[in-house]
Amino acid sequence: MRRHVVVGRTAQLRTDKISHYPAGLWSHGLLNFRNKPYILWQQATHRMEIDGKSAGSLVEDAVVWANQHGLVVALKDPKFINPDVAIIHAPLSLMPVPYPRGRFELAQQVMPLFNRLVDAVATDEAYLESTLGPAALYDTFTGRLLKTLQATRAARALHEAGREVVLGVHRSDYMLDEPSGKFLQVELNTIASSFGCLSALMTRLHLYMASRLPSLEPSRLPANPTLEHIPDAIAAAANAVGFREEGGVVVMVVQPGERNAYDQQWIQLGLWERHRLRTVRMTLGDIAATAKLDEAGGGTVTLKTGEPVCVFYFRAGYTPTDYPSEAEWAARELIERSNAAKCPTVAYQLAGTKKIQQDLARPGVLEKFICDHRDAALLREFFAGLWSLDPNDVATDPGVAAAVADAIARPEAYVLKPQREGGGNNLYGEELRDTLITGGERLSAYILMQRILPPANRSVLVRNGQWSESETLSELGIYGTFVRHGNNVLLNEQSGHLVRTKTSTSNEGGVAAGFAVLDSPYLVD
Amino acid sequence: MRRHVVVGRTAQLRTDKISHYPAGLWSHGLLNFRNKPYILWQQATHRMEIDGKSAGSLVEDAVVWANQHGLVVALKDPKFINPDVAIIHAPLSLMPVPYPRGRFELAQQVMPLFNRLVDAVATDEAYLESTLGPAALYDTFTGRLLKTLQATRAARALHEAGREVVLGVHRSDYMLDEPSGKFLQVELNTIASSFGCLSALMTRLHLYMASRLPSLEPSRLPANPTLEHIPDAIAAAANAVGFREEGGVVVMVVQPGERNAYDQQWIQLGLWERHRLRTVRMTLGDIAATAKLDEAGGGTVTLKTGEPVCVFYFRAGYTPTDYPSEAEWAARELIERSNAAKCPTVAYQLAGTKKIQQDLARPGVLEKFICDHRDAALLREFFAGLWSLDPNDVATDPGVAAAVADAIARPEAYVLKPQREGGGNNLYGEELRDTLITGGERLSAYILMQRILPPANRSVLVRNGQWSESETLSELGIYGTFVRHGNNVLLNEQSGHLVRTKTSTSNEGGVAAGFAVLDSPYLVD
Repeated sequence: MRRHVVVGRTAQLRTDKISHYPAGLWSHGLLNFRNKPYILWQQATHRMEIDGKSAGSLVEDAVVWANQHGLVVALKDPKFINPDVAIIHAPLSLMPVPYPRGRFELAQQVMPLFNRLVDAVATDEAYLESTLGPAALYDTFTGRLLKTLQATRAARALHEAGREVVLGVHRSDYMLDEPSGKFLQVELNTIASSFGCLSALMTRLHLYMASRLPSLEPSRLPANPTLEHIPDAIAAAANAVGFREEGGVVVMVVQPGERNAYDQQWIQLGLWERHRLRTVRMTLGDIAATAKLDEAGGGTVTLKTGEPVCVFYFRAGYTPTDYPSEAEWAARELIERSNAAKCPTVAYQLAGTKKIQQDLARPGVLEKFICDHRDAALLREFFAGLWSLDPNDVATDPGVAAAVADAIARPEAYVLKPQREGGGNNLYGEELRDTLITGGERLSAYILMQRILPPANRSVLVRNGQWSESETLSELGIYGTFVRHGNNVLLNEQSGHLVRTKTSTSNEGGVAAGFAVLDSPYLVD
Repeated sequence: MRRHVVVGRTAQLRTDKISHYPAGLWSHGLLNFRNKPYILWQQATHRMEIDGKSAGSLVEDAVVWANQHGLVVALKDPKFINPDVAIIHAPLSLMPVPYPRGRFELAQQVMPLFNRLVDAVATDEAYLESTLGPAALYDTFTGRLLKTLQATRAARALHEAGREVVLGVHRSDYMLDEPSGKFLQVELNTIASSFGCLSALMTRLHLYMASRLPSLEPSRLPANPTLEHIPDAIAAAANAVGFREEGGVVVMVVQPGERNAYDQQWIQLGLWERHRLRTVRMTLGDIAATAKLDEAGGGTVTLKTGEPVCVFYFRAGYTPTDYPSEAEWAARELIERSNAAKCPTVAYQLAGTKKIQQDLARPGVLEKFICDHRDAALLREFFAGLWSLDPNDVATDPGVAAAVADAIARPEAYVLKPQREGGGNNLYGEELRDTLITGGERLSAYILMQRILPPANRSVLVRNGQWSESETLSELGIYGTFVRHGNNVLLNEQSGHLVRTKTSTSNEGGVAAGFAVLDSPYLVD
């Protein structure tokens, strides 16, 4: 039964548009608040008169707040004389998105386990090689990363040997699955996890909205400490590496012409304000051209200006297009050979691939890395169904064969994801069914995944100062930070969150690409 | 003797460009730090290598900081789809400008006296009328304000009578006069004193710069509490007026299409965050069209949406072009007849005219309003020489006649300012001499003023993300806030400061017009 109720974010809706209730919240044990949101909605109606003008005025205030507080992206309008310098509020949702408190807090709680899992998987290079070796046939990018892992092994062994400093800044992305009521993992990002800082500002914006609208309770907006945790983790790694007294710096590895530089700049400011640690922004091309590696003398990298590098923090390097020439690969290898902390190492990056995600989901594999069975069981609460389509697996594993058969019967419940990182589109529906039926070698390039079916909401999406009301889906990311020095784990924390919301009609696309907007969670009991 | 020394702001200079020492600092008792700045300069040279690239990197960081922290103006690029929404850092000076600490602190100290002076002058409406009446012959704008003062007198008497709430947000503008070593007053703004909030952010930017450059001492950047004081004063007036429980609001009277809206928005945010007081932005035209005055019932103004108005805070209405039709004058008169606090009243606005400034400078006039002779003497420390050119005054006042004779002999030491508010250019040099020699009735439209001769500095000016190095002059503004309820002065404070810096070749022009940049003071002993 569909009900005329929307939770928490209804102030912007015209009553004639409230056509359905997000059944997801209804279905997974949240029945107990079915009255409360209705009251919220009435309050909002009463206070705001729910016409376009009121919504417009709130939108204007939100845009001004965002512009005042650095919740911004570069305008990059090529017509403007200096397009990097002009900015505009980040695309945003006017009101937060309701999520069940229990499941949200579980996702926070599990994050240190995901951090440990990445570290354990990355440390087992033999496992990475055996699992990803076949994938490299279809994915030259992963193949090249594997080659880099192997080529640098001896150099790394020289100056590491129990003294290595490992830095992880991860983001585990989930969608709330309506049928099961669980947050199921979409992917685990181990490189260039972005939007952490802007997301913290997004939480502050929704706190401001809560001050404006009595129907929004600020206590339902969870703390979002990315602005502190991410710089603190980078600084902890820098301090463990040393070089602080020699003027050691953090190198942020960036893409040329990054539009989301303000998210990154907040990390730089945090490193400076909280730790007096200076950041140098460099592309892989810059590093290839100017950085020097003293391999014989312990692996120290120094910049042209003489400063040693404590940490390489990547906000690039995750996609093949970030390596347009051999120079960029040379830079990556130089970094990998160095004694600086790398966020991530090549091994960490490989541990975040879809193939590894799929393999860990196989019975018994996760459990090799996380020995405590309660911890493993908790992690598996967040695993969606994932199956290899390697002909061998399909032929020998009855679980895989059953999933393939079910996907042919009910393609709407599955998605085919290309294994290749940073390229290729997912297949859905008829296309998915046809591909599975055709079968053959080509299937090995894909992973079959349970399709997560999130509840729909209605949102006011604000882009370029203009708003529109849409039916939307949201994705939750939980940040994790991890620092290890040899055997000593210095830091392993849940470090904040991100919610991205997009119209339910678009299957793909992110905030930076203009498809999604920044949002934040509103915890309902 | 010119020396190769520049104080505090030298990091950006190439040595071959340091062609002269700002003799102003040298000449007025600051001789004792002639070595220190030289050391500062050496430190800066050593640390920054003073090449274009280092300055460029500092500029980039300053621009990012400004963009992150709301030190911004609307881009207003008509090519952009939504020009109000895109923003860009405010024009700024990379480094603060050196000022003598003693004189700066004296200017802070005198501000409450200027607040009292404005209040005393504005309360003496007979004085305003007799002094400004003749000026109205040459200045229809002042004439119209006088008419409004008279037309509303009966209405104001009805609901005031010792219960009126008076709110002043003033800014007294000075230039450091090199020959005398004093800050001499350029003008006293009693309406729409702008840039207070952006100036507080400018101080924070220079504090950030001080964290980057050891040669800048943060203790030399004085506290700049505009972001707190201005909202606090408006809120104090609103609370004294009442209506808070009925949903009373502050109306900010704005110009259509204001480019400096972010400076104003910071006040709005402060009113909300610090006092939960809501601001409605309206043009005089909006007010004429929609506000209702209940004159019989005590003078309460209500908006179309039903809220009563506690305070009208003007960021418009100071120039004839703000009144394109009778509707705007009707709005002004409606406001003046109301029981809301007005910042400013018509009387306050008139008390800030150049003619009043000139008249107060006459022997004995200031002293009628400020009885304590020490207070009056302190105020006079900041008065430049000012003379009426009314033929009667020239004929009868030997002081005026002597000034005119001297100005003809040394035109470079004087300036002719049109009395008319908001229009007309100042006359200098040959033009000034010719005008004085020609004489006649036309002279009455001008005020003769001692030309203030500020020391030149060198600055790195940053506009649209691009920097240039220039010889510059700076102007200091000190904000004052004042709230009186009947006979009870609730608040009378020095409330922060503003420094604007412009190239020494431009005689006129402000920050908003693109001629000047925001700056901040660096106090040297």
